[in-house]
Amino acid sequence: MTAEVLEQYRQKIQTELDKVVDFWLKHSHDKQYGGFFTCLGKDGKVYDDLKYVWLQGRQVWMYSRLYRTMERYRRPEILEAAKLGGAFLQKFARVETSSGPGKCAFCLTRDGRAVKVQRTIFSECFYVMAMDELSRITHDKEMQADAERMMDQLINWVRVDSSGLGRPKLPGDRPVNSMAVPMMLLCLVDQLTEGRTEVEKLTELSAWCVEQILQHIQRDGKAILENVTLDGQELPGCQGRLQNPGHALEAGWFLLQYAHAKGDAQLQTIAVEKFMDVPFNAGWDKQHGGLFYFLDVDGHCPTQLEWNMKLWWPHCEALIAYLMAYSYRKEPRLLDQFKQIYDYTFSHFSDEEHGEWFGYLSRQGDVVLDFKGGPFKGFFHVPRCLYMCEKLLDGLLEGQGSSS
Amino acid sequence: MTAEVLEQYRQKIQTELDKVVDFWLKHSHDKQYGGFFTCLGKDGKVYDDLKYVWLQGRQVWMYSRLYRTMERYRRPEILEAAKLGGAFLQKFARVETSSGPGKCAFCLTRDGRAVKVQRTIFSECFYVMAMDELSRITHDKEMQADAERMMDQLINWVRVDSSGLGRPKLPGDRPVNSMAVPMMLLCLVDQLTEGRTEVEKLTELSAWCVEQILQHIQRDGKAILENVTLDGQELPGCQGRLQNPGHALEAGWFLLQYAHAKGDAQLQTIAVEKFMDVPFNAGWDKQHGGLFYFLDVDGHCPTQLEWNMKLWWPHCEALIAYLMAYSYRKEPRLLDQFKQIYDYTFSHFSDEEHGEWFGYLSRQGDVVLDFKGGPFKGFFHVPRCLYMCEKLLDGLLEGQGSSS
Repeated sequence: MTAEVLEQYRQKIQTELDKVVDFWLKHSHDKQYGGFFTCLGKDGKVYDDLKYVWLQGRQVWMYSRLYRTMERYRRPEILEAAKLGGAFLQKFARVETSSGPGKCAFCLTRDGRAVKVQRTIFSECFYVMAMDELSRITHDKEMQADAERMMDQLINWVRVDSSGLGRPKLPGDRPVNSMAVPMMLLCLVDQLTEGRTEVEKLTELSAWCVEQILQHIQRDGKAILENVTLDGQELPGCQGRLQNPGHALEAGWFLLQYAHAKGDAQLQTIAVEKFMDVPFNAGWDKQHGGLFYFLDVDGHCPTQLEWNMKLWWPHCEALIAYLMAYSYRKEPRLLDQFKQIYDYTFSHFSDEEHGEWFGYLSRQGDVVLDFKGGPFKGFFHVPRCLYMCEKLLDGLLEGQGSSS
Repeated sequence: MTAEVLEQYRQKIQTELDKVVDFWLKHSHDKQYGGFFTCLGKDGKVYDDLKYVWLQGRQVWMYSRLYRTMERYRRPEILEAAKLGGAFLQKFARVETSSGPGKCAFCLTRDGRAVKVQRTIFSECFYVMAMDELSRITHDKEMQADAERMMDQLINWVRVDSSGLGRPKLPGDRPVNSMAVPMMLLCLVDQLTEGRTEVEKLTELSAWCVEQILQHIQRDGKAILENVTLDGQELPGCQGRLQNPGHALEAGWFLLQYAHAKGDAQLQTIAVEKFMDVPFNAGWDKQHGGLFYFLDVDGHCPTQLEWNMKLWWPHCEALIAYLMAYSYRKEPRLLDQFKQIYDYTFSHFSDEEHGEWFGYLSRQGDVVLDFKGGPFKGFFHVPRCLYMCEKLLDGLLEGQGSSS
């Protein structure tokens, strides 16, 4: 009975992934300048030709990962697309700023000139992801070394000296442990270490990331807060009370994956109960369904204008989280949670007519922004979710999912 | 008949202004550290104690202006509040950054330590507004000189050398004529020159601002675009197609006021027909009423998540714009437009229960963020609107409004 249900999910998800990949293969490639268009309307038409570095990197990563790990995507056109995207990034992503070398732009013109640089680490993170994964299919050792050098730079910014990011030092700007940073670095460690001999500094880094992520469990375990002090205390004001359920769920499956690989049963329980159940219960809209984007732990109204919107990516992360949890723990209630999220997600975000998913719904579940790609939505969360879920379902159906 | 209608508006607006002033006098003063709390919940309770410099400056300006120009607000508590706010700003707003002197912070801790600096000119603009207006009631020449020095700095950043703002020079970052800049500078010239001997450099600056604002008339006069090139051409992509109806309407009444003072009938017509009617017709939601926040001139979906929300401030600016237009031109259709905006605004934003206005509604007109003050909503657009409208109604009812 369960196998039948899982098989239905697998078929649906497989088909959906194929449609999503087709959409981006068809509409997003810039044959003239290289790289990818990511501002794509509901029918795939390009409505802006700026190239966002986060999204360029993510698309290179996704193509490369599909090529490397899924038989049906080992196709020349996917390899070609990944390589052209990687070349565009290597050629244009880096900028020289007065703060020092190594920064990547946030946004480039169509022909690769830097438009904007953020004073954060994320463009560089997606650069590392892209180059490492691409080097695995091209066997380009120099590219792999490029990714590793950038990773060293990232570690330096986060743990030693952040001045290269270009943020002015201000007396009231206290350092914050923001969930995104250790979560992203943990993801990168996973990327860089897969199938390779253990590297001491990365092992130590991943332990540090886990420790930093666990600091976000607050209020006697009843809340995951997005920002805490460096020693894991609650911060005052809106910043301190902020909850981002999608982010917590994403951290949840990163943690669970890590704990599973380590055989750490206690950490697996924390990942599921604290980083999945707590944000899911806090974040699910009992009235209209779907996950809120932001919430205030004390019930104040968040100051983010989009707080009550339903975005695609928290739902993607929630799907991965609960299916992974189910595949390791086999508790039926975890599959029920997956079903609840799946039903909302597939009936609200997926576009039957033109393919791919809408990204931005009102609280009531109506499409409010009807494009398929934009400055923050590219070829990443949807295909990664479908890819991860398909892999997990493969494992479950082959009886290989249970080893915890 | 019309006089009766205008008198009804005046009474309603007067009462509303009193309630709004009372709300901020009661809830926003920080008696311990000086300055103002601006993150106030629907009942006025402080939910965050960060101090946003834009909003500190605006509140000082508004109190000072009310004290100076409206008999019933010439009260010691308002003078005191303005002075305490001004002292807080003078003591804490300025930061020293590596880009050079003169920058003001965007945000301070409760006790005045800088948290964040923006790479724009607006904190400094509101500093100038605050200090000039306050110096007019305190007769503090040194404070007036402080405002004038900051104004010189602003002119230098905008027209000579922007490097002091701290934005890195990037090859793809083409200079843009963004509506906010000439509009804000025109507002400051009006502030600094009121009742004073003409100063050549400010007269020249205001002419430059008007020229820059007029460059935003695009598409054969059928659209006001928020961003254009420095020589008034349309920019590519989303940035170029962006419409911000509230901003255009605000520029409309700044322009109209300027043209009226100059006795420039042609510019008055442009102000009304291009900067009011065009954005109003483009921006008014025919289905649910109210003004959209952002639109794309070609009908693409804007990438701003809040594009279809109804914000309080565009409605405030639209009210001032059409009442000013009516007071100068006496065309009944302008009063009809005012009525349409007034009816929506007073029935949707104003809060009978606790006073002040909600700021953020869904497209359908429901309150989505229920606070009265936040990082971008302070004691400014609502009271300035009510103050301007009351003054305009005074003029109309005394038969002094018509001189164009």
